[in-house]
Amino acid sequence: MEFFFKPDGIALIGATSNPLKGGNAILKNLKKGFKSGIYPVNPKYKQIEDLTCYASIREIPHKVDIAIVFVPGKFVNPMISQCAEKGIKGIIIESSGFAESGREGLQMQKKLAAAAEKAGIRLWGPNCMGVVDIAHKKILSFVSPSIWDTLLAGDVSLIVQSGMLSGAFLIDTMSHQTMGISKVCSIGNKMDVNECEILEYLIQDNSTRVIGLYLESFASGRKFIDICSQSTKPIVLLKGGKSEKGARAAMGHTASMAGNNEIVKGAMAQAGVTQADDFQHMMDICRSLSAYPENFSRDSKKGRIAVLTYTGGAGIVSSDFIDTKNNVEMAELSPSSRDLLEKIFPEWMPVANPIDLWPAVERNGVETAYGTAIKAVCRDPYVDGILIHAFAGGFALNLDIESLAAEAGSARKPLFCWLLGERESAMAFQIRCNKVKVPVFREIFRAVECMNAVFSRQHVTTGQENAAAGDSAGTGAFPVCLPETEIPETSELTILDEFHAKKILASAEIPVTEEDIAQFPETAAQTALKIGFPIVMKGLVPDMVHKTESGLVSLNIRSKQEVEEEFKRLNTDMKHKGNILVQQQIKIDVELIAGLVNDPQFGPCVMLGIGGIMAEILDDALFRVAPITLEQGIEMTNKLKNQKLLNGFRGAAKADREKTADILVKIGRMGYDHPEIREIDINPLVISRGTPIVVDASIIREKNK
Amino acid sequence: MEFFFKPDGIALIGATSNPLKGGNAILKNLKKGFKSGIYPVNPKYKQIEDLTCYASIREIPHKVDIAIVFVPGKFVNPMISQCAEKGIKGIIIESSGFAESGREGLQMQKKLAAAAEKAGIRLWGPNCMGVVDIAHKKILSFVSPSIWDTLLAGDVSLIVQSGMLSGAFLIDTMSHQTMGISKVCSIGNKMDVNECEILEYLIQDNSTRVIGLYLESFASGRKFIDICSQSTKPIVLLKGGKSEKGARAAMGHTASMAGNNEIVKGAMAQAGVTQADDFQHMMDICRSLSAYPENFSRDSKKGRIAVLTYTGGAGIVSSDFIDTKNNVEMAELSPSSRDLLEKIFPEWMPVANPIDLWPAVERNGVETAYGTAIKAVCRDPYVDGILIHAFAGGFALNLDIESLAAEAGSARKPLFCWLLGERESAMAFQIRCNKVKVPVFREIFRAVECMNAVFSRQHVTTGQENAAAGDSAGTGAFPVCLPETEIPETSELTILDEFHAKKILASAEIPVTEEDIAQFPETAAQTALKIGFPIVMKGLVPDMVHKTESGLVSLNIRSKQEVEEEFKRLNTDMKHKGNILVQQQIKIDVELIAGLVNDPQFGPCVMLGIGGIMAEILDDALFRVAPITLEQGIEMTNKLKNQKLLNGFRGAAKADREKTADILVKIGRMGYDHPEIREIDINPLVISRGTPIVVDASIIREKNK
Repeated sequence: MEFFFKPDGIALIGATSNPLKGGNAILKNLKKGFKSGIYPVNPKYKQIEDLTCYASIREIPHKVDIAIVFVPGKFVNPMISQCAEKGIKGIIIESSGFAESGREGLQMQKKLAAAAEKAGIRLWGPNCMGVVDIAHKKILSFVSPSIWDTLLAGDVSLIVQSGMLSGAFLIDTMSHQTMGISKVCSIGNKMDVNECEILEYLIQDNSTRVIGLYLESFASGRKFIDICSQSTKPIVLLKGGKSEKGARAAMGHTASMAGNNEIVKGAMAQAGVTQADDFQHMMDICRSLSAYPENFSRDSKKGRIAVLTYTGGAGIVSSDFIDTKNNVEMAELSPSSRDLLEKIFPEWMPVANPIDLWPAVERNGVETAYGTAIKAVCRDPYVDGILIHAFAGGFALNLDIESLAAEAGSARKPLFCWLLGERESAMAFQIRCNKVKVPVFREIFRAVECMNAVFSRQHVTTGQENAAAGDSAGTGAFPVCLPETEIPETSELTILDEFHAKKILASAEIPVTEEDIAQFPETAAQTALKIGFPIVMKGLVPDMVHKTESGLVSLNIRSKQEVEEEFKRLNTDMKHKGNILVQQQIKIDVELIAGLVNDPQFGPCVMLGIGGIMAEILDDALFRVAPITLEQGIEMTNKLKNQKLLNGFRGAAKADREKTADILVKIGRMGYDHPEIREIDINPLVISRGTPIVVDASIIREKNK
Repeated sequence: MEFFFKPDGIALIGATSNPLKGGNAILKNLKKGFKSGIYPVNPKYKQIEDLTCYASIREIPHKVDIAIVFVPGKFVNPMISQCAEKGIKGIIIESSGFAESGREGLQMQKKLAAAAEKAGIRLWGPNCMGVVDIAHKKILSFVSPSIWDTLLAGDVSLIVQSGMLSGAFLIDTMSHQTMGISKVCSIGNKMDVNECEILEYLIQDNSTRVIGLYLESFASGRKFIDICSQSTKPIVLLKGGKSEKGARAAMGHTASMAGNNEIVKGAMAQAGVTQADDFQHMMDICRSLSAYPENFSRDSKKGRIAVLTYTGGAGIVSSDFIDTKNNVEMAELSPSSRDLLEKIFPEWMPVANPIDLWPAVERNGVETAYGTAIKAVCRDPYVDGILIHAFAGGFALNLDIESLAAEAGSARKPLFCWLLGERESAMAFQIRCNKVKVPVFREIFRAVECMNAVFSRQHVTTGQENAAAGDSAGTGAFPVCLPETEIPETSELTILDEFHAKKILASAEIPVTEEDIAQFPETAAQTALKIGFPIVMKGLVPDMVHKTESGLVSLNIRSKQEVEEEFKRLNTDMKHKGNILVQQQIKIDVELIAGLVNDPQFGPCVMLGIGGIMAEILDDALFRVAPITLEQGIEMTNKLKNQKLLNGFRGAAKADREKTADILVKIGRMGYDHPEIREIDINPLVISRGTPIVVDASIIREKNK
């Protein structure tokens, strides 16, 4: 990939002297960034922008690493052989008219990909804005050359699957001096180079500290989260196409396949990726994590925030927001903080958090007031982070943000700033904040959101753990027997019924109900006596999913006689087709649902949710990509929204989270080790006296795998 | 109130020539706004800012309507008599050091209020920023005089319970030219003049179209919502102190009483007040409603939004946000819209919403592309509102926002704009948008939030309806008998047990279970036979709340003999104290909980929620201020989050919403007509075969009312 970022010789195919065209903007940008090695190609010109222009690539008498293409799709294909001849390593196609433009364009794109692969040339794009490397002042893009006036280098790099957007956004961010940027990689249709390769490159890149992505699809979901899991650099994702209609729009836009958002959410949480909802939201989280990429929590609890304000009202609203978040909470100040603050507060004023400093400012001046307060909270062992309210211009509140930042920095406490002010003063203050790496915000809620994101870093599963899970999965020491012969194979997919599904689960040492199939009333009764009353009897009819609704489940059977009678009734109802199951009856405290699905983007994924009647109301389920570790399984039980149900609901025993997690680990391993398992559905997974047990299940197996 | 806004003669007590002091800023601001009638008062000066300065109010030889005070609290009290002598109608106290500064200040404030009331003088403040009337260019405030350079008049007026904040915010809003403002009324400790009076004034005010409030407490919650209910002008509220800790901060700040946020939420919804969460959020909703104050929905459904974009990515993210909202949804374009758009779209590109216009811009230019699209969606009967994406500066996307706004305006379709761009161009474009009243936003999610707020106006209960409810409540034709004699009065509060509570509910024609108290096993059996088996028997012990947990509830009693046995058992368990209730057994489809609470701010409020086991999980309850109309009762049933439970859950009949609402209306009326009822708790209110019936209830009555 290096040659895309540090090319030795660039041919620009589609160079033009018309300043309204992209081919001219690219050339101007190249000229500003590179002292030499820029070769415009266009048979119509001898010279453009004081550079020699060549009629074709062949004629360039110098070394050329990459070509940037800005001509319509149909002209690109014939150039591949010329590029190969010239020894070009990569082509960035910034023009559009490929897969995004319908069937014909898609065909063209496929041919192009094939030709390039054959020639050993890497393709970037098409339909993209290319590369903007602000840290090294190299712009391989048609973004307006006016951007050079406002370039602000930083350590956040972006990967963006939308050309127009990355251009528009970059100009906006730069001209507002919101934050510095390292690289922007616009990947467009990603016909060859995709987000995964660039992500790997940026993780190794010295000038990148945080990576933000806008994606509408994943080239490979599983590879993506594998890379993210290994990254110690924070990664922030805005996934376009979350809702059903959004997904439809994404289809129209890049013909990309949008995934089940719940699976995406679970996979990203698992890989330690922070998810954003909007563009500035993503940028704001990125710059916050760039200032504070580590884990800043003193212990496993929430980040305890002190709010320093000049207005009680904003203090209250900050407190309101902080109290709604998962990873931050309002700090309770220590006695020594209070002592320190009391010295600058007027006598009548009680010390509290939010720390309202205005009366102290009036008495002691802004420097003493804010200075004392920052010292107090920096020394306070009960404070983990600081939100400061600032005003720039207009009245006497000129904060020495550099000193405040230094104080917070040496205490290793993240400092955030909410800023109001007169337009130019606010801009100047914001630039000062950027220089000392204090994230600054125009809205309180966003400042709190970003603090929350910083303090959520502690919850990230480290790369090591995930790698270990992958390794152990590779040992294959996992005795799951798939009964090949017993099941009639009538279709591409085989649905294993409750009895056979549970046999497989049991072979993986997942606890299931004690049970057996009976051929005759008498054997049913024998089985029942062996299991012990009360028992349950079920009629298993091939391909019938809803046993209960079909009247084929009988509970509370308490005698040999009842067993025999029920056997006959079931047999008649089933028209003597299928099997009759005699099963241990389980005391139900809580019904969960667990399973495995195969996602087209992420492969086998483990699911856990609330089951039973509650499931119809609660909509409480989550996913993780398989295989998972025991810790991840326990985390799944901890991340269900309705924790009350697991914590001894209505006098029941608390659910054993480790045993529950163990089942999740095992079904994850089954799905990962056996690609032929398309789906596992355990419904319900009953928590009985605290212990999980599979009461009903089915497995769908693919015939041809 | 008029004299506060249009005073004839203003005395400024605490005027000073020191430009760093508030007393100087107020004087400068007064001088700029008023040609004459400004009278500085300060014995230290003969003249300040070219105006004659008086040693005391008495010495002013002209008419003086109001005094503005900017001296420490302790000096204010002695001035009241002088002000009264001078015929002053109102005093705005902008200085602090009153109730917010502890016990001493509170005492001072109380004395001041008493003295002013006696003298017939109205007091505004203290601890506030006073009045800034931008529409009429009158600034009665210590806000920095530099604000005059950026004043932008508009039709949104604000009432703010935080002095510093209103100043800081105003400077920020003006200098960023975010929006125009009519009046800012900073009310501080509101010792006399409060939000209700100012709200009434602003509702009548010709230069105010929308009113935004930041409040930490309500002077009178009930009066507030009465005023809001009658207002045809949109009202937006940011309530500080929502969370428990936020409420504690509010206490510290203005010694104000923060209410139960759930009741506040319900009351505001009922009164048609839009609630905001953050300061800019409030301002953004205000300016959106100022552009579009009416009900823009074609019918009762959601506002159907067309998105016009230059970037597919932003279209997708817009669609994602719109799909999460209650009052807007993505529009499906009509065939004729599609025909029109196909003419400007490249052949390969399917027409869809979001409408990605970039390829059309490239083919036809920006004017034709956006012009055609706006025409299409304006004529489209399936589109109610439009979100347009704009970029200012840098590349060829200069939108003629004035024409677009005119087109949308004549079609009566709200047009919103999301804007990126180069800093100065974006500012210029934003100012153009403001001029043609197109709300413009820097973030997509906020644009969508504000569209949602505009399209929620249809759901507002009109003032008329509420007034009617109040009127009919006044007729008192409501036969509720409160049994005075039967209940032993042992404390200030009397808790009526299930039997007596239900008697009262029944007297208001609320359906309750058929039941009676029995003294002997035989009479219990007789009652049971009369009711019909199965029956329920309950032991009612005075002050025992948890009958079920105490083993004093027996279900499924099916014979005379069982009744008699159960009677004996209960009587023994109750140690022969209390009563035994024989009760009709009801088939339970869904358990609700309904009731009445007396809120210190809003008075009697009706509650409805999900009951039973579900209640412990779901946290689904809402409040309305009593009395309520039948429509409001039905709306309560519609606003429960878990609608599934009412819509025929698991094969049950659908809940009769009108009958349920009727019960809510009746308990609301009971609470409103009988102030002695402190609390009604109906738990459960069972939905049985679709019909609501009270199965258990208690009432708390205050002795002295």
